[in-house]
Amino acid sequence: MTGPRYTPLAAGLPATVPFVGPETPERALGQRLRARLGANESVFGPSPGAIAAMAQAVAEAWMYSDPENHDLRRAIAAHKDVAPENIVVGEGIDGLLGYLVRMVTAGPDDHIVTSDGAYPTFSYHVAGFGGTLHKVPYRGDAEDPGALLTKAAEIDAKLIYLANPDNPMGSWHSRNVIEEMAANMPDGTVLVLDEAYGQFLPPGDLPRIDASSPNLIRFRTFSEAYGMAGARVGYGIGHPDLIGAFNKVRNHFGMSRVSQAGALAALADAYLAEVIESVASARVRIAEIATTNGLTALPSAVNFVAVDCGGDGAFAKSVLSGHRRLRRRDRVQTGHRARALRVFGEQTVL
Amino acid sequence: MTGPRYTPLAAGLPATVPFVGPETPERALGQRLRARLGANESVFGPSPGAIAAMAQAVAEAWMYSDPENHDLRRAIAAHKDVAPENIVVGEGIDGLLGYLVRMVTAGPDDHIVTSDGAYPTFSYHVAGFGGTLHKVPYRGDAEDPGALLTKAAEIDAKLIYLANPDNPMGSWHSRNVIEEMAANMPDGTVLVLDEAYGQFLPPGDLPRIDASSPNLIRFRTFSEAYGMAGARVGYGIGHPDLIGAFNKVRNHFGMSRVSQAGALAALADAYLAEVIESVASARVRIAEIATTNGLTALPSAVNFVAVDCGGDGAFAKSVLSGHRRLRRRDRVQTGHRARALRVFGEQTVL
Repeated sequence: MTGPRYTPLAAGLPATVPFVGPETPERALGQRLRARLGANESVFGPSPGAIAAMAQAVAEAWMYSDPENHDLRRAIAAHKDVAPENIVVGEGIDGLLGYLVRMVTAGPDDHIVTSDGAYPTFSYHVAGFGGTLHKVPYRGDAEDPGALLTKAAEIDAKLIYLANPDNPMGSWHSRNVIEEMAANMPDGTVLVLDEAYGQFLPPGDLPRIDASSPNLIRFRTFSEAYGMAGARVGYGIGHPDLIGAFNKVRNHFGMSRVSQAGALAALADAYLAEVIESVASARVRIAEIATTNGLTALPSAVNFVAVDCGGDGAFAKSVLSGHRRLRRRDRVQTGHRARALRVFGEQTVL
Repeated sequence: MTGPRYTPLAAGLPATVPFVGPETPERALGQRLRARLGANESVFGPSPGAIAAMAQAVAEAWMYSDPENHDLRRAIAAHKDVAPENIVVGEGIDGLLGYLVRMVTAGPDDHIVTSDGAYPTFSYHVAGFGGTLHKVPYRGDAEDPGALLTKAAEIDAKLIYLANPDNPMGSWHSRNVIEEMAANMPDGTVLVLDEAYGQFLPPGDLPRIDASSPNLIRFRTFSEAYGMAGARVGYGIGHPDLIGAFNKVRNHFGMSRVSQAGALAALADAYLAEVIESVASARVRIAEIATTNGLTALPSAVNFVAVDCGGDGAFAKSVLSGHRRLRRRDRVQTGHRARALRVFGEQTVL
């Protein structure tokens, strides 16, 4: 008896996944890793208010969450000074990126632009819906807005993906650069601005929110600065037409009720400022560790620090493997790119 | 400046949603509804063990959940006497149905069969991925396996959707009927057996699990009997090839870590049997209420009872509108089909 008849697209997709969780090597090694650094989770955790709200909400887990995410969207909108119609909430930015790619991608004639080395889950979705992905190189240690725009015009892209600040490098562009890029999008091309780490940008560098542009969608998350990666709450900010279109395809009952409660509480308390300050201090400490060990910490506007080891990938790996040569209590793990190690100090991993 | 260029499929999708949550009429009315009956949530709630596990896990919400759902899949597999490779976990059955439909549906030449009046979220996914949906009528108050099979053969269907027990009627088929249907699937047609309410089936009526069939996938959930609808944990049981294919398209980091912990704890405790017993008692009470009021309760193998009012939709609605004529503390709400009211007694709604 023959089984499922997959679409040619589904049949041809690789079984590889964008990210492997730390639990996988832990199971392979039979021991806990000393730190979970690969996904930039925040060891500062959720705010006490968010923890309390989630703990209280677990007894209400018999109820589905409100599929309109009404209260959370209204709270986010007030926080960002936009209307609730400008906000879509989903199962992390990952889930929302999938819905967005799906809405504009029917096959290989749909072209999408990203950077070579940028967030792999976005690329996973483009492959998953059969679009043609074009990659432009980083310029130095940062994504290159000019190259992204040039490539998009050349191949008539439907989407340009740009993370600001960038993961995995931690680099960022000034407000002016991003605002100018958004203002110069080709007709019919949407700038997908992934601001998962936006809260860590230096004051004044966060671009103004223009929720009236039909060619811009910004993504934020409770995963990083809010310390709630495991809650899976991301959101998009954009024009009401585009935001409304998500309702045609999203999993309306996909949100955890406990997570909704946690996100609502996280927005309402002042803990975020403390985390941002602690992360800033930790970045200084990490840079010191790098310098002390003859390595170069890159400037960072995120909750991790990429460290340039000055050699090739093999050399970077040797620094990792020989991490006991670093001072006691320092921790090292490879980042997404071979030449950059991400070195974390005691303030972030303990 | 022109905005997004949607695919023709996405542009043509309706903005309607399969289900409206109770929060929507509550906001419109400006008051809380006296009961939430539309989605068959369990007022018995999660088990004390699951509540404790979730409450403990909220402080760990800074970590992403294990994207492989390793521990939960292993526990479910042990519980069902299959291998972990037979289990895929996702954001509710709703999310998993979407992934499944996506994998076999490229356009209108992909045909899928369901019943007219059956679970609308499945139909939503078929529309969302552009497949052609064929509906066969209920036979009496139940989905009709013979008609589903005949239609599937006629139009060379890739999927047949069957809920057993059925929502919204609460009816069910004996083990033999389902096993025979599964054994007689046309080549290349997959039976999508939605067993969201499977735990409520009379002992002996739950079909044997044949995880080696390439043409069968069964879906279960922690939403109903386990009382964890708001946690969003569903799973599929099937052949490792089909189960593995979900890894090509799913949102690997889509699960809430708190929900994972709750589901794991829920599997480990004995609370489920109590809930099943309480639900059985409540069904008897609800049937009594129907009889007392001159209505007919349909046999039910779920956690709700459909009540046949004996007239047309307008008459059923008049029963609903005039529900104060029912005995004090009884509650009435329309089901998904006009002629069936779902009447709930104090044991389920208080």
